[in-house]
Amino acid sequence: MANTIAERLIADHLVSGEMTPGSEIALRIDQTLTQDATGTLVMQELEALGLDRARTEVSVQYIDHNLLQTDEKNAEDHTFLRSACRRYGLWYSKPGNGVSHPTHMQRFGVPGKTMVGSDSHTCAAGSLGMLAIGVGGLEVAMAISGGPLYLRMPEIWGVRLTGELPPWVSAKDVVLEMLRRHGVNGGLNRIIEYHGPGLAGLSAMDRHVIANMGAELGATTTVFPADEAVREFLRVEDREQDFVEIPAAADARYDVTDEIDLSGLEPLIAKPSSPGNVVPVREVAGTEVSQVVIGSSANPGLRDYAVATELVRGRQTDDAVSFDVNPSSREIFADLTKMGDTFALISAGARIHQAGCMGCIGMGQAPAVGHNSLRTFPRNFPGRSGTKEDSVWLCSPETAAAAALTGEITDPRELAERLGVGTPTFELPERASVNTDMLEPPLEPEPAAREELVKGPNISSLPDFPPLPERIEAPVLLKLGDNVSTDEISPAGARALPFRSNIPRLAEFTFTQVDETYPRRARELSDGSGHVVVGGDNYGQGSSREHAAIAPRHLGLRVVIAKSFARIHWQNLANFGILALEFADPADHDRVEAGDTLVLDDVREQVKGSELTIRNVTRDEEYRLRHRLSERQVEQVLAGGRIPLLAES
Amino acid sequence: MANTIAERLIADHLVSGEMTPGSEIALRIDQTLTQDATGTLVMQELEALGLDRARTEVSVQYIDHNLLQTDEKNAEDHTFLRSACRRYGLWYSKPGNGVSHPTHMQRFGVPGKTMVGSDSHTCAAGSLGMLAIGVGGLEVAMAISGGPLYLRMPEIWGVRLTGELPPWVSAKDVVLEMLRRHGVNGGLNRIIEYHGPGLAGLSAMDRHVIANMGAELGATTTVFPADEAVREFLRVEDREQDFVEIPAAADARYDVTDEIDLSGLEPLIAKPSSPGNVVPVREVAGTEVSQVVIGSSANPGLRDYAVATELVRGRQTDDAVSFDVNPSSREIFADLTKMGDTFALISAGARIHQAGCMGCIGMGQAPAVGHNSLRTFPRNFPGRSGTKEDSVWLCSPETAAAAALTGEITDPRELAERLGVGTPTFELPERASVNTDMLEPPLEPEPAAREELVKGPNISSLPDFPPLPERIEAPVLLKLGDNVSTDEISPAGARALPFRSNIPRLAEFTFTQVDETYPRRARELSDGSGHVVVGGDNYGQGSSREHAAIAPRHLGLRVVIAKSFARIHWQNLANFGILALEFADPADHDRVEAGDTLVLDDVREQVKGSELTIRNVTRDEEYRLRHRLSERQVEQVLAGGRIPLLAES
Repeated sequence: MANTIAERLIADHLVSGEMTPGSEIALRIDQTLTQDATGTLVMQELEALGLDRARTEVSVQYIDHNLLQTDEKNAEDHTFLRSACRRYGLWYSKPGNGVSHPTHMQRFGVPGKTMVGSDSHTCAAGSLGMLAIGVGGLEVAMAISGGPLYLRMPEIWGVRLTGELPPWVSAKDVVLEMLRRHGVNGGLNRIIEYHGPGLAGLSAMDRHVIANMGAELGATTTVFPADEAVREFLRVEDREQDFVEIPAAADARYDVTDEIDLSGLEPLIAKPSSPGNVVPVREVAGTEVSQVVIGSSANPGLRDYAVATELVRGRQTDDAVSFDVNPSSREIFADLTKMGDTFALISAGARIHQAGCMGCIGMGQAPAVGHNSLRTFPRNFPGRSGTKEDSVWLCSPETAAAAALTGEITDPRELAERLGVGTPTFELPERASVNTDMLEPPLEPEPAAREELVKGPNISSLPDFPPLPERIEAPVLLKLGDNVSTDEISPAGARALPFRSNIPRLAEFTFTQVDETYPRRARELSDGSGHVVVGGDNYGQGSSREHAAIAPRHLGLRVVIAKSFARIHWQNLANFGILALEFADPADHDRVEAGDTLVLDDVREQVKGSELTIRNVTRDEEYRLRHRLSERQVEQVLAGGRIPLLAES
Repeated sequence: MANTIAERLIADHLVSGEMTPGSEIALRIDQTLTQDATGTLVMQELEALGLDRARTEVSVQYIDHNLLQTDEKNAEDHTFLRSACRRYGLWYSKPGNGVSHPTHMQRFGVPGKTMVGSDSHTCAAGSLGMLAIGVGGLEVAMAISGGPLYLRMPEIWGVRLTGELPPWVSAKDVVLEMLRRHGVNGGLNRIIEYHGPGLAGLSAMDRHVIANMGAELGATTTVFPADEAVREFLRVEDREQDFVEIPAAADARYDVTDEIDLSGLEPLIAKPSSPGNVVPVREVAGTEVSQVVIGSSANPGLRDYAVATELVRGRQTDDAVSFDVNPSSREIFADLTKMGDTFALISAGARIHQAGCMGCIGMGQAPAVGHNSLRTFPRNFPGRSGTKEDSVWLCSPETAAAAALTGEITDPRELAERLGVGTPTFELPERASVNTDMLEPPLEPEPAAREELVKGPNISSLPDFPPLPERIEAPVLLKLGDNVSTDEISPAGARALPFRSNIPRLAEFTFTQVDETYPRRARELSDGSGHVVVGGDNYGQGSSREHAAIAPRHLGLRVVIAKSFARIHWQNLANFGILALEFADPADHDRVEAGDTLVLDDVREQVKGSELTIRNVTRDEEYRLRHRLSERQVEQVLAGGRIPLLAES
């Protein structure tokens, strides 16, 4: 029996465990990626772990999130991160060099390698035939230190692609179709593997778009074969020598299967405020739009800008629309400029921003309340744009550009016909504007060992967390519904992100998107016994930020009870000593309320099994709960987290 | 006797008054300019004045300050301003179209016209032979309503230029030389008029650089003749038909004179944290630099970017330097892109930002504490960058680009020689990338009258201020030294600027740069009798923001006593009912202290004369004070401000 690509990549890197879905496995990690909003903690964790020098093949620290620099904190973080790269032997990608995912793909991605990254869209590198997984920062720190990645063996979900995309329909519509069919938790505990004849029409960057937003399906990661499209991409990037062919086996056996006929797709759009609210563009055509943004790691390719430019070239965006263009990397911006597209975009009325994540992480270009914003971004969770009551839609560059011209949601096929614009064609340049001068290579070991970490006043130390007590008696401070995202737990955006290196300050933003009183109420629990949060399905979806565990933990969160958890957040909870429990009977979610006091007795004893009982003393009820922690993770949680456990040993 | 150009422009627009230095004159105003950080108040003032339609020849609302949009407030302000333009018959310049000053010069400036603008750098239009004066927003609102501008007739300061600038020395160094000689209050109550054979080597944009930073000398404005250089500029802008020759008279008589031999100049730099701290670059060469920014209204010309590009082309900026490029207008960005300079800048490591004011007004790119930032900006007042303890230097694009390459302050002549870069040459393009599609023209009167103002939740109403009481007994809440800037009174920057349309919220930032307790202490004065602030020389220098009067007035400020006042702020105080008094004996400044209680009796009677006596009841002393208010202004102040006075009549 031929294995899937995902299984072959796992087998090649398996350190321990059984490749049976659900079993914990450990994988050797070849590469790591960190960005600045999560990287400052990773570097502090390396310091806490006493690392001398990175043990991975390649580890790169990107500066792409906190580029607005509205005060000194961002620049101080950048200085700290550069000093840590010099100390620990990492690559440093300067501010302005670009968003981690496309930049990593251009400069470092190698088919067949494993990678972890402290960014949930790390999975985008699956476009090159890598096994690339978004994880919490501590997992990355462990990988940089040479440790394996622990995860539960996922199911392999084979998605067969046939046919060819029609004009004005593109890769973004493919992944939006997946979200339309399966929703934001359709990929939980699965690796999505695309295969089939439809791949022939998708470039490596198209696959990046699809792999990137696998994160929005909740998938562990996405993989593609490394075929001629990948070779061509690497050739243009001057790295053909890094190509390794990884073909799909014709008779691979998948745990789950699905099929998409590309020729049957049409332009799709995710309505506010979930990537899962997908409908055909034509169904919402005519809706007024005030802002259109193209860019981000979800549509980062030269093609994505070029096809949008094709539509707006020689035309002018609507008077009432702000048309924001956010180049994803320095290289792509240089290519666009060389091709004449930058000039065409400026002439059409674009506001062109520095290369980075920008509004995708709520760093700038927040829309007005009640005004629709169309974005080629991966996420539209409530408030993520920086505007609390925002109205953000997700779509392809084709659909975005059409709305920029008309001022309303518009099917790009219809507009192209009306304007007489022919089917856009795009060819990769013969050679990209490759320029590695903004990538500072690791120092040699000798000078590196003498480097000092440069910590500005905004870089706090990692908080110390005590072990889990033997008895927890604590109130439920919040009760939440399904699909709570980490943006709601620990928001990004221009107000909060500058405090990502300062947990006590950051903690003041915790859960404020859903309840402004949470930080105060948590702090006021004077007895120190902590508190509980209750969630629904897919709790903690979205980003990889471990701040969504550390910040509420700092405020006293000891237990989260949910119907189910998103993978990365679940792992982050375990890493920082918070007990993540699931209702054995999901109907119990309806019986517990905010304000109830819960009691968990004999914690150590109970957690060593997989089933627990918790008492609701307010209602005089008991709930059966279970956990999915491995023995390794149980030890971590009991010790107060992974770092205290390491410190003990 | 031949008049100066300044006198001819004044005489052509004189509505009332005597052209004797110190007398109040009233001038007819042809054009106005507003930007978004001051414009939201101007539009509310138009509403309060009950205006139906603008009565000026040209009035333009620019959106250039608040472009970061870290939350919904900026976008809501933009929406409000667009609706006000549609209602009142103003031009609307969309976000991304550019900084007001260069954009106005490119599209609207006409030799011989008068202009007021609610931005202190409005004076830059003197480069075209206009009489352009930065004023508070209410003055602009009055001008839009057809009213004259009142000001005290300034002295005319003739500065004769001879010789030609050496290579790597440019217009910025000319105005830095003026600041080196005369300091930040050298131009108080003066119009600077440049003349002489040295003008032949200065393009209209070079003159813009010099006229712009006349604001930093404290001058009322700066004027240049409208000669062939101006005709050439307008020709390239496709507006040669707007050219009117305004030659200098060979035998003009100036009240004050000075002379600069351009050939004797060298690269200069203003050290932190005043534009007046000017030294030769060579004296501080070798100082480490972490950030270099080119752009802003002080160096907005195509040439300024092109000459910087000449130095960095094919090279790479230092690893430790962030090189930020801030295009000043869409047109200049388009031209730069067409010329290949955008590509060269990206390749050299530049972070390219949207066209706007950016870090010049503290909206982004704040440096780290203790790290030097070199900027081609006009101002480096403490904290203006967004970083409280900043270290900002002001210099030419040549000097800035040199530091970007070396990572330290570097004389560009020395670096050019070392690198073998020849003298940079620059020719204006035959025709600029003129594109007016982001300028929305005024609506016709009929539809305009039916337009509604769109006020989002962040747009508060103008506060109501009561008349000045007959007796003021109030404590001195702050005692300050010389040259306090409006950035210290009501800060700009990413935290405060979004509240520019919301006085109660904005007021919480008042004086916090110098004393964080001021807003609280002011609010706690429960008896409502208000408070006093004591300042030194040139009190209120810098920007035109009337918020620096309104916000402390909202907190109870009734009297400012200083050694002398900067012009615009002095006028803003009078407009909003705050009594601006000067020590008759400057030595009395040393005798009064914060915490002292002052008593001003018989206010109405005393203010009608020009001398007043105030008692310091804490120290049992009396001080003689005087004011420079005209009768018109006295009535305003007594009524509680200009708007209450108009409401009475």
